[in-house]
Amino acid sequence: MTRTGDLLPSWRPGPTRDVLVDFLADATAVPTVDRVACFDNDGTLWCERPTYVQFDFFVDELTARAQEDPTIGSSPEFAALLSGDHAAIGELGLERIAFALTGLFEGTTASAFAARAREFMDRAVNAALDRPLRRVVYQPMLELLDELRRLEFTVAIVSGGGTEFVRAISQDLYGVPPELVVGTLIKYDFTRDDQERPVLRRTGHLEGDPNEGATKVTNIQTSLGRRPILAAGNSGGDREMLEWAAAVDGPSLALLVDHDDADREFRYLSAAETFAEPEPITDVGARLGWTIVSMARDWDQVFPPAVA
Amino acid sequence: MTRTGDLLPSWRPGPTRDVLVDFLADATAVPTVDRVACFDNDGTLWCERPTYVQFDFFVDELTARAQEDPTIGSSPEFAALLSGDHAAIGELGLERIAFALTGLFEGTTASAFAARAREFMDRAVNAALDRPLRRVVYQPMLELLDELRRLEFTVAIVSGGGTEFVRAISQDLYGVPPELVVGTLIKYDFTRDDQERPVLRRTGHLEGDPNEGATKVTNIQTSLGRRPILAAGNSGGDREMLEWAAAVDGPSLALLVDHDDADREFRYLSAAETFAEPEPITDVGARLGWTIVSMARDWDQVFPPAVA
Repeated sequence: MTRTGDLLPSWRPGPTRDVLVDFLADATAVPTVDRVACFDNDGTLWCERPTYVQFDFFVDELTARAQEDPTIGSSPEFAALLSGDHAAIGELGLERIAFALTGLFEGTTASAFAARAREFMDRAVNAALDRPLRRVVYQPMLELLDELRRLEFTVAIVSGGGTEFVRAISQDLYGVPPELVVGTLIKYDFTRDDQERPVLRRTGHLEGDPNEGATKVTNIQTSLGRRPILAAGNSGGDREMLEWAAAVDGPSLALLVDHDDADREFRYLSAAETFAEPEPITDVGARLGWTIVSMARDWDQVFPPAVA
Repeated sequence: MTRTGDLLPSWRPGPTRDVLVDFLADATAVPTVDRVACFDNDGTLWCERPTYVQFDFFVDELTARAQEDPTIGSSPEFAALLSGDHAAIGELGLERIAFALTGLFEGTTASAFAARAREFMDRAVNAALDRPLRRVVYQPMLELLDELRRLEFTVAIVSGGGTEFVRAISQDLYGVPPELVVGTLIKYDFTRDDQERPVLRRTGHLEGDPNEGATKVTNIQTSLGRRPILAAGNSGGDREMLEWAAAVDGPSLALLVDHDDADREFRYLSAAETFAEPEPITDVGARLGWTIVSMARDWDQVFPPAVA
């Protein structure tokens, strides 16, 4: 069990890395069918600050639309977004903003939506970090995904974000195929074109509930049909998923990323900001015996090295 | 392209087999990510006569429950089922019967349900065919699944039956993992036990619509995130899925199994029996240019050879 030299090179030696290495060794005794790992995306696999990547994508689309048709900015939601009026955005509320943005792609086919998302991801940057969005993924987590797959784990992404947005880049960024992405779904309409051929178009409505909290657990069962023995997250919306993984018989791992690295990324408490949790998620995790990943302490490198 | 000697040995030489062989050759030019094949289950991968396998399973459970608690037979649905009163079953209607049977497993966990389904499949037989249920799968289709996977296809089952029932046997019978089974879903309840640990239990209600017709297409997109270039089915409920596959750009295949073999299996028209289609599904398929598989003509062997 000692190939620690090349194993997880961006994880600094210490208690967190020891827990990971021990879990990986123990997991080889678990039947392959039960080697399932579920990772949250925003704040767990890639950076979610200063804004969600998917939010940037929607605002990018809105901005392009407004250049073609300025009247689009007449709704209070779009007016606030186009002018970057954070007070107005906060007053309208994220739910109303999200609903308005979702409507931008009503009528779009799945392939056109995926192409648009990839086009955006190929050029957009995180200005605060001065990095392309494709390079704000966490290098230590990429190494963990690879190691899990080497051990024949089924590795899934279980995101509060839009399923189809994450699918557009999941194979490329994370090596995760579309059927292993579980997220918030948009309902589709089955229609026919003028030659009676079937066409599938996005509606402006959700299919089921947003993929957060207990819904992550029920969606893991309905979408994947298996229970994870490893779950990783960073916010209150991941709590039930981490508890679900931690409560299996046999080896299990609940990993919580603590954003405590103001120098290299951001320093913030997750839970308190978007969820009405009675305590910060790091306190919950400590109480429940989860493994808390300190970005500042445990990660030798946060992002992938620059492309040559 | 001539390894036809060992390719699909249970398919008799002729036009149908030629179409399959040509499609498999053409598909190697398709990007791997687009090599997706979706198979209906009942009547396409395994026998659905004289009764659906899942129906037999539910009645088996009902019978066992009635031995422990005879009062369970007091409802009109269960009384009709327990006495095998086909007239009464027909009068109550399949929808009401199915709802009553679904309620049998309300409160059951996913793992307990899967264990029960496997226990049943290990001993149950199709009396009309004098074969164990595990051996009423179609040998020519198993060969096709294997060949598709050899060509790096993602092979999914898209069934009108219960997702969790099919998942319980899909890896074992078909080599298809649970996340590639798309079917009719039961809603789960996230609850907690007396030690506050999360527990997931089946409800008595569906999650979304039954997986038939256009819903098969929308569920393929939401569950798998990819579009099939091959779809196979046998009934009116498969029509939209076959049209969806047939309408892609590039190589595609829509396969319709025609149950025309009264000697070795059953002879019946699918569509007219359970769907209000204006024409038999074989006529629809012929009109739309699908490949119609005649069991009597195209299959050298219908079921797997007896186990030694």
